[in-house]
Amino acid sequence: MYSKSINRLIDSLKKLPSVGQRTAERFVFHLLKSGKKDVGELILSLKDLVDNVKSCEVCWDFSDENPCHVCRSAGRDRGLLCVVGDPQDIHAIEKTGIFSGLYHVLRGVIEPEEGGLDPKLKIKELLARSSPKNKTALKEIILALNPDMEGETTMMYLEREIKKQNPKIKISRLARGLPMGGDLQYADEITLGSALKNRTGK
Amino acid sequence: MYSKSINRLIDSLKKLPSVGQRTAERFVFHLLKSGKKDVGELILSLKDLVDNVKSCEVCWDFSDENPCHVCRSAGRDRGLLCVVGDPQDIHAIEKTGIFSGLYHVLRGVIEPEEGGLDPKLKIKELLARSSPKNKTALKEIILALNPDMEGETTMMYLEREIKKQNPKIKISRLARGLPMGGDLQYADEITLGSALKNRTGK
Repeated sequence: MYSKSINRLIDSLKKLPSVGQRTAERFVFHLLKSGKKDVGELILSLKDLVDNVKSCEVCWDFSDENPCHVCRSAGRDRGLLCVVGDPQDIHAIEKTGIFSGLYHVLRGVIEPEEGGLDPKLKIKELLARSSPKNKTALKEIILALNPDMEGETTMMYLEREIKKQNPKIKISRLARGLPMGGDLQYADEITLGSALKNRTGK
Repeated sequence: MYSKSINRLIDSLKKLPSVGQRTAERFVFHLLKSGKKDVGELILSLKDLVDNVKSCEVCWDFSDENPCHVCRSAGRDRGLLCVVGDPQDIHAIEKTGIFSGLYHVLRGVIEPEEGGLDPKLKIKELLARSSPKNKTALKEIILALNPDMEGETTMMYLEREIKKQNPKIKISRLARGLPMGGDLQYADEITLGSALKNRTGK
């Protein structure tokens, strides 16, 4: 019922995460109403992305430069590596202002139902960076994936593989505990248990 | 913290309805992960939209043709006009298969807080179509805007203006009642009251 061009754009937009038919329709009619200037700006932004954003071949973040500015920075601790799932996680950690090491973006986590490792995950590249043959020897790797089923599975797998080739490397994880503003009554047992076990104080 | 090109696309995507910073970030990193082919296809679809989709200058739906295929169709009842808010509403009504008249897309509704009529609303165009001077005289106009505050206000306004220039025209609205699969207990009083008042039967 919609015209060919409208359906084509709906189909393209439906490939975006959590965009279904109805949301895609709303996007298309919003663009049609907003006029050629806004659509033109969106087209130029997308072209800019394709033309200028590349993968940093050290940490696998996306950046206008390769290597990216974090990997090239002289001020970072090159013995400390933080492994995250997505590029957005780097943003979150940088905002805390308390991490001065380097990053490695895995580009996702191991999905148990898929059976076999997704070759797009930057696991091989992580093992190359943590290998004892690597001249800038890593002292510690922080596994900072999301504390959910897939994240935990992936961290267990990575820990085993890293230890296998380099038993001396220290492997750590982010602390579990109550979030700021959290409520004791509503905390799940695992979180509250971790918060008790790892309690801080003099 | 994100690169210039990434931030630029985030800003463009945030103009889409109900897309905030986090959703826009997810869209951008999804596109970066999915690769140049998918972004290229999205760019081509957007260009196709700009180049080929126009406003039908009779009903103000969006279409690849002007006038659109509904307005040009010989099989439609030209005495019956259905006024809707958005192009998607035409899609919903056509799917019922029981309407054979023409449409008029208002391109929104009157927002009370804005003060004064949005000139983008196709109200002037609707009054021109319903004018007694128009040679294809309309017999009935169905006001089929959403049954919410803005929709009701807009329908009241339209009814008054249409009657002012053409008192003979019949003006109707969609029936209020229980939706299919609805639950009596959870129906609001206005809906249930309408369902009682307009009960059907022999």
